[in-house]
Amino acid sequence: MGPATRYFTQTTPFSLTRGGELPQVTLAWESWGTLNESKSNAILVFTGLSASAHAASQPNDPSQGWWEGMIGPNLAIDTHRFFVVCVNSLGSCLGSTGPESINPKSGRPWRLSFPEITIDDIARAAQLVIDDLGIDTLYGLVGPSMGGMTALAWLKAFPKKTQRVALISTACSSAPFALSIRSVQREAIVTDRNFQDGQYNEDNWPEVGMRLARKLGMITYRSAREWDARFGRKRQDYFPQQAFGMRFEVESYLETHARKFVGQFDPCAYLYLSRAMDTFDACDSDESLIQLFTRSFTGHALVLGVDSDILFPAHQQQTLAGALESSGSEVSFEILNSAKGHDAFLVDSKLFETPIRSWLA
Amino acid sequence: MGPATRYFTQTTPFSLTRGGELPQVTLAWESWGTLNESKSNAILVFTGLSASAHAASQPNDPSQGWWEGMIGPNLAIDTHRFFVVCVNSLGSCLGSTGPESINPKSGRPWRLSFPEITIDDIARAAQLVIDDLGIDTLYGLVGPSMGGMTALAWLKAFPKKTQRVALISTACSSAPFALSIRSVQREAIVTDRNFQDGQYNEDNWPEVGMRLARKLGMITYRSAREWDARFGRKRQDYFPQQAFGMRFEVESYLETHARKFVGQFDPCAYLYLSRAMDTFDACDSDESLIQLFTRSFTGHALVLGVDSDILFPAHQQQTLAGALESSGSEVSFEILNSAKGHDAFLVDSKLFETPIRSWLA
Repeated sequence: MGPATRYFTQTTPFSLTRGGELPQVTLAWESWGTLNESKSNAILVFTGLSASAHAASQPNDPSQGWWEGMIGPNLAIDTHRFFVVCVNSLGSCLGSTGPESINPKSGRPWRLSFPEITIDDIARAAQLVIDDLGIDTLYGLVGPSMGGMTALAWLKAFPKKTQRVALISTACSSAPFALSIRSVQREAIVTDRNFQDGQYNEDNWPEVGMRLARKLGMITYRSAREWDARFGRKRQDYFPQQAFGMRFEVESYLETHARKFVGQFDPCAYLYLSRAMDTFDACDSDESLIQLFTRSFTGHALVLGVDSDILFPAHQQQTLAGALESSGSEVSFEILNSAKGHDAFLVDSKLFETPIRSWLA
Repeated sequence: MGPATRYFTQTTPFSLTRGGELPQVTLAWESWGTLNESKSNAILVFTGLSASAHAASQPNDPSQGWWEGMIGPNLAIDTHRFFVVCVNSLGSCLGSTGPESINPKSGRPWRLSFPEITIDDIARAAQLVIDDLGIDTLYGLVGPSMGGMTALAWLKAFPKKTQRVALISTACSSAPFALSIRSVQREAIVTDRNFQDGQYNEDNWPEVGMRLARKLGMITYRSAREWDARFGRKRQDYFPQQAFGMRFEVESYLETHARKFVGQFDPCAYLYLSRAMDTFDACDSDESLIQLFTRSFTGHALVLGVDSDILFPAHQQQTLAGALESSGSEVSFEILNSAKGHDAFLVDSKLFETPIRSWLA
C-alpha cells in the first residue's frame, strides 16, 4: 500500500467457492515494465501468506519489495521484456478486500463475519485485475509458497491461459506437519484474551497470539541447519533479561521478527489465509493432478524447491514435477541446496535467479 | 506418585549450582528387582522432561509405566539381574521437590520463588537416593532425552562411579532449533492470562498456554514422515466443528494429547525444567567433552539416536559417540531407523531393546 500501489474494484458481487459472496471486491496491485501492444508479455506473480503487492522497488516507490533483486530491468524477471503484475491476495489486509475491510452493509470491519475464502477465490480475484488490463493470455505465472498454490488454482480455473508457470517452494496440498503448525498458530491467536471473537481494537490487540504465531512461523520458515551455523548457542544481550525471558541469540532473533510483524498484519486476515492454505487440495479433487495439468497447461513449467524446507518439503515439489511431466509438459525441476529453508526464495533468492532466467529465456 | 512410589527426604539444605539452596529436598523414586548383597547390580534411570518415576508396572503398581516393556523380568533391562531405580527429577511436580512444592519458610507453594535449577542439580539430587541405598558404584546409568543430559551431568559430578552408560536420543547441549521451540512454549505459558506470575490456581489455570506448549511439544516429538503416513489429510469428526477449529485428524490428535497433559503437569515445573534443558551444556564447559569422558568414564557406553528426531537430531548423538570413542571408552553407537522421531524411545521402544540388551549382556 505504497505510492506505487493501484487498486481495482469490482462493484458487483464476487461469488465464493464455499458459498456466499462479497458484495464488492478491491484488489491492490503493482506492476513493473510495460505491457506490449499485443498484450502478450504479462507475468502474474502470486505471493506468500503475508506479502503485499510490492514485490520490488520501482521509480515511484523506491522501498525494498519482498522479491527485491528478482524483478526489474535486466533481472531474472526482466522488466525490459515483461510486464509484471503482483496482486495482494483476496483476504489479506494489505490493500485487497479482507476481514479487516469495511463490510458495506454494516459500515464496520467484517472480521469474523467475513465469509470463508479459498485459494481458488484468491486466484479468481487476482484474475479480475488481469481481465481489467485486457490481457487474454499470460506469458507466465509465478507463485512461491501460498502463491504456488494460488498458481495451481489459477491453472484449474483458467486452463491454457498461460505459456509458462513457475511453482516455487510449494505443494498441491499441505502435509500434516504444516497443518499442525498452522493449527497451533491459529489457536494462539483465537485464544488471546484480546482476540475477543474478532472484536479487538488498537488498544486491545491480540499481540500475544500474533507474536507466538509469528515466532512459530519463523521457526518453520527457516531450518535447524541454518541456525546451527548462524546462532549456535550464542547468548543475547540485546533485550533485557527477564524471568524465563530470552537468553539465546536465536530467541532475540525471533523476538525481533515478532515485534515487526505484530503491527503489520491483521489477525483475522492471518486466520483466513492460514485456513485457506490448509484446505487447498489440488491432489485429491475430482481430477488427479496429472489430469489437471493435462487439461490446463501446455508449455514450459519450472518447479523449484529447497532441500532444507520443512514446511513444503522437497518431495512435494517432486510430486508436482512428476505430474507435470506425466501430463506432457516441458518441465525444469530442481531442488536447490540452501540452509535457508522455506524462506530461501526470499532470503537466498540469488539461487533462484538462474533457473528462473533460463525458464523465461 | 502411585502405590509403588517411595520418597527420600533430605532435611538439610541442598545447594544449587546457580547459587542459593533448597532448605530440604524430597525425591520420588521407584525400583524394580532386588539389590544384591554387594550392591553392585544397580541401574539408575533418568527421565525425560515430563515423566514420573513410574517407568514400568510392578506387582504393587500394575499401571503402565512410561518405559513399559523395557524394564522387567527377562526384558531388555532385566530385573532378574538388575536392581533398577528411577527417580523423578528435582524441579518436577510428580513427587520430587519442585516449584509446586510447599516452601517450608512461607508455608505456600514456591512457584516463581523457586530458585533456578540446572540439569547438574537434578543429577546430584537423584544421587541422594543412590547414596541412601548405600550404593557406591552403579552397574549402569540410562538416560533418554533430558535424562541423557542428566546422565552426562551425573558422570561429571560422580566420575568413574558407573561401569556402563546409555545415552539415548540426547545431546551434550540443545541446538538452536530446540531452544527456539522451548522458548515459544515458555512464552505461551507465561503470557497466558491465568499464569499471573505463577499465582494461578485450580479455577484459573494457565490452560491455554499449557495446551499450546504441549501441542508444540508433540509436533517436535514426532516427525513429518510419521504423520504423512499416519494422518495424511484425513478429516476429523471427533471434536465439534468450530470457527478456525479442528478440521484434520492431525489436529484432533494434538488436541487429545493437550487435554491429557493440562491437568497432569504443573506449569511452573514445566518452565523450570524447560529452561534447565536450554542452559545445560556439557560441550562448552571448562573441559571438553572428550576430557569429560576421559576423566569420568571407563566402561561400555551405548549411544542411540533416531534418524527422524528433529529435537535431538542424529548428529548430536554422533558427537557424543565420537567423544566417547576418543576418550578410549568402548562404544556401541547406532542411529535407529524409525519414523517416530524423538519419541521413538517411548513409542517404538521395541527397536531399542536389542541394543540395550546387548549393551547390558
